[in-house]
Amino acid sequence: MTEIEAAVTEKARRAKEAARRLAYMSTREKDAGLLAMAGALEANMAEILAANAQDLEAGRAKGLSGALLDRLMLNEARVKEMAQGLRDVVGLPDPVGEIAAMWLRPNGLEVGQMRVPLGVIGMIYEARPNVTVDAAGLCLKAGNAVVLRGGSEAIRSNTAVTRIIAQAAYAAGIPEGAIEFIDRTEREAAQVLMRLNEYIDVLIPRGGAGLIQTVVKTATVPVIETGVGNCHTYVDEFADLSKAESIVINAKCQRPGVCNAMETLLVHRSVASSFLPAIAARLKERGVEIRGCPETLKHVPWAAPAAEDDWYTEFLDLILSVRVVAGLEEAIDHIYRYGTKHSEAIVTENYTNARRFLKQIDAAAVYVNASTRFTDGGQFGFGAEIGISTQKLHARGPMGLKELTTIKYIVFGDGQVRE
Amino acid sequence: MTEIEAAVTEKARRAKEAARRLAYMSTREKDAGLLAMAGALEANMAEILAANAQDLEAGRAKGLSGALLDRLMLNEARVKEMAQGLRDVVGLPDPVGEIAAMWLRPNGLEVGQMRVPLGVIGMIYEARPNVTVDAAGLCLKAGNAVVLRGGSEAIRSNTAVTRIIAQAAYAAGIPEGAIEFIDRTEREAAQVLMRLNEYIDVLIPRGGAGLIQTVVKTATVPVIETGVGNCHTYVDEFADLSKAESIVINAKCQRPGVCNAMETLLVHRSVASSFLPAIAARLKERGVEIRGCPETLKHVPWAAPAAEDDWYTEFLDLILSVRVVAGLEEAIDHIYRYGTKHSEAIVTENYTNARRFLKQIDAAAVYVNASTRFTDGGQFGFGAEIGISTQKLHARGPMGLKELTTIKYIVFGDGQVRE
Repeated sequence: MTEIEAAVTEKARRAKEAARRLAYMSTREKDAGLLAMAGALEANMAEILAANAQDLEAGRAKGLSGALLDRLMLNEARVKEMAQGLRDVVGLPDPVGEIAAMWLRPNGLEVGQMRVPLGVIGMIYEARPNVTVDAAGLCLKAGNAVVLRGGSEAIRSNTAVTRIIAQAAYAAGIPEGAIEFIDRTEREAAQVLMRLNEYIDVLIPRGGAGLIQTVVKTATVPVIETGVGNCHTYVDEFADLSKAESIVINAKCQRPGVCNAMETLLVHRSVASSFLPAIAARLKERGVEIRGCPETLKHVPWAAPAAEDDWYTEFLDLILSVRVVAGLEEAIDHIYRYGTKHSEAIVTENYTNARRFLKQIDAAAVYVNASTRFTDGGQFGFGAEIGISTQKLHARGPMGLKELTTIKYIVFGDGQVRE
Repeated sequence: MTEIEAAVTEKARRAKEAARRLAYMSTREKDAGLLAMAGALEANMAEILAANAQDLEAGRAKGLSGALLDRLMLNEARVKEMAQGLRDVVGLPDPVGEIAAMWLRPNGLEVGQMRVPLGVIGMIYEARPNVTVDAAGLCLKAGNAVVLRGGSEAIRSNTAVTRIIAQAAYAAGIPEGAIEFIDRTEREAAQVLMRLNEYIDVLIPRGGAGLIQTVVKTATVPVIETGVGNCHTYVDEFADLSKAESIVINAKCQRPGVCNAMETLLVHRSVASSFLPAIAARLKERGVEIRGCPETLKHVPWAAPAAEDDWYTEFLDLILSVRVVAGLEEAIDHIYRYGTKHSEAIVTENYTNARRFLKQIDAAAVYVNASTRFTDGGQFGFGAEIGISTQKLHARGPMGLKELTTIKYIVFGDGQVRE
């Protein structure tokens, strides 16, 4: 066993030991831990900002882009936001212990499903230090221990933040090991973590497509895939075009760099001439580059021609590919072929078309007459989210506290035996 | 791409194409397929039995044990049972399309969870041909395509059975590709299947610990682990000893070769002298070998001493390890240390001890005053099961039709955009 392997394994082992006790702590005990963590972040502001300044300096020396440096950067307001995030989690209902269902069998056995924590959650993520605090808070509230492995750019910030919140939590009665941070930046550390089936119950990677794919291909621990969203909006022949306009502008422009932003607009041929020139002009005003199919180019002469690759691309930028389609079936086929099953929308006033789209589109979230930007734990009413699952197993779409739990069957008998 | 890789990939691709259409077929259409499959099994009895006779001959030549040959063997009654199994699935409620929940957001959006199929399920399993038919029927009812990979001993039986049921299903309107069977016995075929993330949504291995571990370690496709059950029964100091006696006998003897049978008996010290000699005598009558801790040996002098390894062992046989414990905490600690989180039981009349055991034991099923043998889809009221999950992600415990589905979020709006 290498030294890194030993260090990572020891942290995971401690997390598993803590998880055993965490699983049946009361909501009040866990909330006390969360409040202590929030207070400690604010009380140790200077230390956090000093560590972050070192990360920023190293980032600048490494030539990180302005956008990346901004994501890495902490200031007093951002640390306060992190603390407030933890206090918000205190306000959320505790999913643990809920009896999801209970029924009586003919032999008198009562069989029920009790919601229980997953155990130990491994988080592998990139730059932003706020993910560290969010993940620790949500995992704790749902009764899980967490082993965090953040990106190397934020290593000093994350080391400081996790030491501060973990100490505060432990002083408030949370079992030691509940919040473990892997302070080794070597690739080997992540690889060891991904294969610790004995101690880690589930891995949640958060970051770019490269990170997610590495985890999916390497891990033997079960993974919840998050991420890539090549989202479409289909403007049907029966669309209310004023709704279509505001939905398209919102889905593309309100925050283009996130996974639930729209990347491709599909427009029914019969409304192309009335809809496309107007929406294109509004998108252009907002700096959106359009890459269109040949028919789109007839209506929007200034657009660039779309290449086959563009239909597959999650631009995460002010770029939109646009295609004119002959009808609903062609739109559905396009989404099936190029989509990533994240968030897909139809704009229509037609009842049957809305139902067909809802039924036939296979995605985490399917919308009628609304922006794809709503695929979010907060927007769906979960209070918070730890990521958006794009896989079908266990959790799909925004993952809140409930998705950080599993069930166990509880069975009450009076001496029943099987015949 | 090797020839095997090409062949397996092509089958998986066809399954995925079929899954798209299957996902929104009506219950009536799927049930028609199931009935046609059942009828075809009975109508082609001679062909199935002839193929099975060849498997049996090859098995005898290979020196398979009598038990294995019996599991492999088909006769008229067993084929009829397989057909009846499919007809039973027709009678089960279709989980697809159910709206699990729906709620209104302050902005007027209605957000709901619709139950939908997983997509394509890969089944990797060992000998028994009836698993082939069970799995195909349950996957079809839940709207999934299935790619089956059975053991080499049953290759001729499985090839015949899958050709017959698939042809019957397709003739009844089920899309071609819905039931694919990999008729290659090379290890490479399974390995290719385990890594076809593009086409396979989930893998369910069924078989011995070796098979399960190989799949967990090799697969990049998400896996639902099934299987190993090192199950305990704890007889508390406040147990009703007559209930304890019938539960222990049932959990050990009723069918010792299955995963929900008891492997270790834990007895509270204060009832050891009254309970152990009597239960040991009754177990002995039934041919059970006892391996006891030193204290057990005082009460049951004829028992063999238990080695450390025995506490970890799933005997799947008429062997029972027995340990005397000082109390509930020691019982819980023993189960935490040696158990496999499958099925665990306490026998007690004490309210607080029952609650503590239920809360603190982390297992797929936790029992008070009942035999662990009830961990089964049929016994829990699911009508049928495709296996018993021993992992925490997605499904835990017996998996029925519902566990072969996932959800998608459906969102109804009136033009809502995100602020």
